[in-house]
Amino acid sequence: MNINLNQAEKIIVAAKSKAQALDTKMNIAVVDAGANLLAFARMDGAWLGSLDISIKKAKTARYFDMNTGAIGELSQPGGSLYNIEHSNNGLITFPGGVPIKNSSGEIVGAIGVSGSSVENDHVVAEAGAIALK
Amino acid sequence: MNINLNQAEKIIVAAKSKAQALDTKMNIAVVDAGANLLAFARMDGAWLGSLDISIKKAKTARYFDMNTGAIGELSQPGGSLYNIEHSNNGLITFPGGVPIKNSSGEIVGAIGVSGSSVENDHVVAEAGAIALK
Amino acid sequence: MNINLNQAEKIIVAAKSKAQALDTKMNIAVVDAGANLLAFARMDGAWLGSLDISIKKAKTARYFDMNTGAIGELSQPGGSLYNIEHSNNGLITFPGGVPIKNSSGEIVGAIGVSGSSVENDHVVAEAGAIALK
Amino acid sequence: MNINLNQAEKIIVAAKSKAQALDTKMNIAVVDAGANLLAFARMDGAWLGSLDISIKKAKTARYFDMNTGAIGELSQPGGSLYNIEHSNNGLITFPGGVPIKNSSGEIVGAIGVSGSSVENDHVVAEAGAIALK
Repeated sequence: MNINLNQAEKIIVAAKSKAQALDTKMNIAVVDAGANLLAFARMDGAWLGSLDISIKKAKTARYFDMNTGAIGELSQPGGSLYNIEHSNNGLITFPGGVPIKNSSGEIVGAIGVSGSSVENDHVVAEAGAIALK
Repeated sequence: MNINLNQAEKIIVAAKSKAQALDTKMNIAVVDAGANLLAFARMDGAWLGSLDISIKKAKTARYFDMNTGAIGELSQPGGSLYNIEHSNNGLITFPGGVPIKNSSGEIVGAIGVSGSSVENDHVVAEAGAIALK
Repeated sequence: MNINLNQAEKIIVAAKSKAQALDTKMNIAVVDAGANLLAFARMDGAWLGSLDISIKKAKTARYFDMNTGAIGELSQPGGSLYNIEHSNNGLITFPGGVPIKNSSGEIVGAIGVSGSSVENDHVVAEAGAIALK
Repeated sequence: MNINLNQAEKIIVAAKSKAQALDTKMNIAVVDAGANLLAFARMDGAWLGSLDISIKKAKTARYFDMNTGAIGELSQPGGSLYNIEHSNNGLITFPGGVPIKNSSGEIVGAIGVSGSSVENDHVVAEAGAIALK
């Protein structure tokens, strides 16, 4: 079970559309089931620094099969996953990374979005993730 | 002078089309004038190991404003740029990276392609690069 | 819109002057609009460890187009950008990095200063940043 | 015995002047006796990819107290220093890095220049290095 390029491109189209509706400029990364980059788009004017963050969010969401924000709640000081960010050559554990599931509910990849508030980042990532369903 | 996302996506479409015509499976990366990733696509079945190579080729072509193969000719043992690959967190200096010029001939980014023979990689990169003209 | 070397050198002169007025010894880095180092000066006796920090501050300020301290407020434990420092090969999010604007108010680069208290670092960075206006 | 910032800035002025006389655009890095960056300037239009190379050349010249090109002759296949470039987080061993000596002939730092042919790079580095004598 793995996402293909055609699906990833549909996801990016959906995410870009949502980003424009929110008047934001996003970096959008899609990784496959192996957490390797499959497709990427940086909207004009989006923060350069969010390029790396969007890819790390997508990888993080697939590494642990959960929304990145959920990991961040556990990696706070005193939390059970404190400092997990040091693993895997750097994780990003605030919202904006979301696993991608196929119509059967199987995780086939993940999307990472960065460029606005983490709330907006998450909303745009969600819009992309559900485009496959 | 800089390439925008819409242009980068047209370049990737052109490169994918050429790759399919050659019956190859490519990783295709487009960087902007700042050598930062702008758009990326990995065709289904393309080598995972070429993901990194395609991005490095695109960056290499923009770092030095020439085809990557031209740098590789100078970086052979005894050549004037021997071991230049150690710089910039790793260059790729065999063919497959090509600068992208606008209609005025100004370099606005670069494309890097990896996944087949270096001859095919270069042909596909060229097909992408000229899509902007 | 991009800063040039002549402007960067004026900025460094202004920052050095302010650093001397405060009796501090600073590392001063200026990056351009692409977040690539443009000019750098380490004042005699300044901490060696601040070399890396000053460059990272300048890059951080340009990556997100805001003062580094503003990012640091959001990256505290529990904050929305907690652990963003793991991205981009390492950010520095305490004060001392400031975007540089041209006379039209457009961001054309950034300055990063490190070598004293973060309050002093910020004051010196500000003195450099306004030298262009 | 160590170079100071004022001396480094004189060296950069001399190197820039020579670069302009040769109609070249250079990245110019000066490291101190500890091989840590002391001053840097990237001339307008110089290759972005040469930023890293200029710094590595300066470090390499100081690490081994010789011109970078001399190391490159020894690091060719079959040579006694073959692949030394893998050490020290990456060396650059083609010409353009030159040790800096004070008036007593003591090595107090090094200059690294990158942006043109290695012959020009070396000439500009030499022009900078002798400015201190």
